[in-house]
Amino acid sequence: MPHELEIIKSTAAMQARARELRAAGKTIAFVPTMGYLHAGHLSLMEIARERGDILVASIFVNPTQFGPGEDLDAYPRDMARDMALLAEVNADIVFTPEPDDIYIPGFETYVALENLPNRLCGLSRPVHFRGVATVVTKLFLIVQPHTAVFGLKDYQQYVIIKRLVKDLGFDIRILGGPTVREPDGLALSSRNAYLSKAERESATCLNRALAMAAQMVTDGIVESNDIIARCEAFIKEHPGTRVDYIAIVDPDSLADVDRIDRPAHMALAVKVGSTRLIDNRRLNE
Amino acid sequence: MPHELEIIKSTAAMQARARELRAAGKTIAFVPTMGYLHAGHLSLMEIARERGDILVASIFVNPTQFGPGEDLDAYPRDMARDMALLAEVNADIVFTPEPDDIYIPGFETYVALENLPNRLCGLSRPVHFRGVATVVTKLFLIVQPHTAVFGLKDYQQYVIIKRLVKDLGFDIRILGGPTVREPDGLALSSRNAYLSKAERESATCLNRALAMAAQMVTDGIVESNDIIARCEAFIKEHPGTRVDYIAIVDPDSLADVDRIDRPAHMALAVKVGSTRLIDNRRLNE
Repeated sequence: MPHELEIIKSTAAMQARARELRAAGKTIAFVPTMGYLHAGHLSLMEIARERGDILVASIFVNPTQFGPGEDLDAYPRDMARDMALLAEVNADIVFTPEPDDIYIPGFETYVALENLPNRLCGLSRPVHFRGVATVVTKLFLIVQPHTAVFGLKDYQQYVIIKRLVKDLGFDIRILGGPTVREPDGLALSSRNAYLSKAERESATCLNRALAMAAQMVTDGIVESNDIIARCEAFIKEHPGTRVDYIAIVDPDSLADVDRIDRPAHMALAVKVGSTRLIDNRRLNE
Repeated sequence: MPHELEIIKSTAAMQARARELRAAGKTIAFVPTMGYLHAGHLSLMEIARERGDILVASIFVNPTQFGPGEDLDAYPRDMARDMALLAEVNADIVFTPEPDDIYIPGFETYVALENLPNRLCGLSRPVHFRGVATVVTKLFLIVQPHTAVFGLKDYQQYVIIKRLVKDLGFDIRILGGPTVREPDGLALSSRNAYLSKAERESATCLNRALAMAAQMVTDGIVESNDIIARCEAFIKEHPGTRVDYIAIVDPDSLADVDRIDRPAHMALAVKVGSTRLIDNRRLNE
């Protein structure tokens, strides 16, 4: 039987609770989410569950990481279902602040990185990572975790959070949780809910392209451009798709890797219909 | 007899010490400085001394808050004297990191405010407050204070730090310490060391202009422009001076106050020879 899930709505109450837990010598493991939870999120909870005495999840659809014309208002929400799922994975606390309790009147302080956001998703989403860095900084200061777990599906976000934590000196261990996939390979994402039946079929092309790229590397192809061109052609065969980017990058700096003679990570973003999907994978070891 | 001053040089050691102090239930009061301590700093230490079990001071001449052509390299330093003064005021710990331990290789994360820096000193020092906000954020995460004390002499900095702490949700109380002055009214500043004898005489014009403005308000003059013009004319009578700005602003938002029918704060910056001096004071209650 699942234990009781404590729901905390205000930033002040969450911070007081974190202070109390720390004073009592408890360790806090944290999974920030935007809700509409799926098995990907729950796998992060399982990882966090093992890393702290108290598992805190947050549900907050962060307005500052959506650009103009993006899907802030349409972003799927189902709080009741989320609560039931969090109780099932034995989360202790769920923190569900309102936007105006995070972005208080007169709010004007932002955390931004200078380089890592100017690549991959940051190119088509120019304000996105400043919003992510700012809200994660604030959530860390409120929840005061010892450990926080982020999904590797949002790979650039994971790299940025690791950099931010190191740069600012947060005393927090950042862990990446492996991408969870549908049986046909599609990475789980709350945005998959937007896909029509036909789009859902096309959407498998992201993961298949990544697998194709990994196979090409195994087969000895070393020119990134060759691999990217082949993947792009493959994706274009799928109805309703439009490639935003396909990139082969250094796993830490996210700088382009032209020849696969060093660690290389492929990341891609594809619009399927009007839904923007992302995926990524390491191409070598 | 002064007690032992603990000197901590590395960020990792300081953070570990702060963690240990907090786990032992101690409260930490913090005074960040750029060293070359004077009675103004020491008065902040006295305030902090009363507010926490452990008084931590930092000495760090922060390179990112100096613009090109500013006085980073010339900034006065005297570590031995600083240590003696800190021991005298019974500081417990002094944190003296090296620049490359704060700005680690690949550092690229900055904290910036959108509005408050675009006024007063921010106009002639465009990168200054981003550097201040970033280093203070990092120092807070390393030293983990319950209370931090900043000098009201740097009034815009004080307002910005209070805003940053509120916006990001730092669980830290920010206190402002009154400006300490020479017998003739000159605000204490490490930069006063740059002044020649003649410049030192001219430098009294900042505080005298503030007193003149406060007297004008007492006398019922309500147009800020009248007050500012009179102060500017007065300052110009002093050899070697060049006004950077004289402003009458709201004490919280730092927005210009055109008529003194609400709380009003005067701030000014004047170059005396090649030394830029600042001062400020509340004009009414």
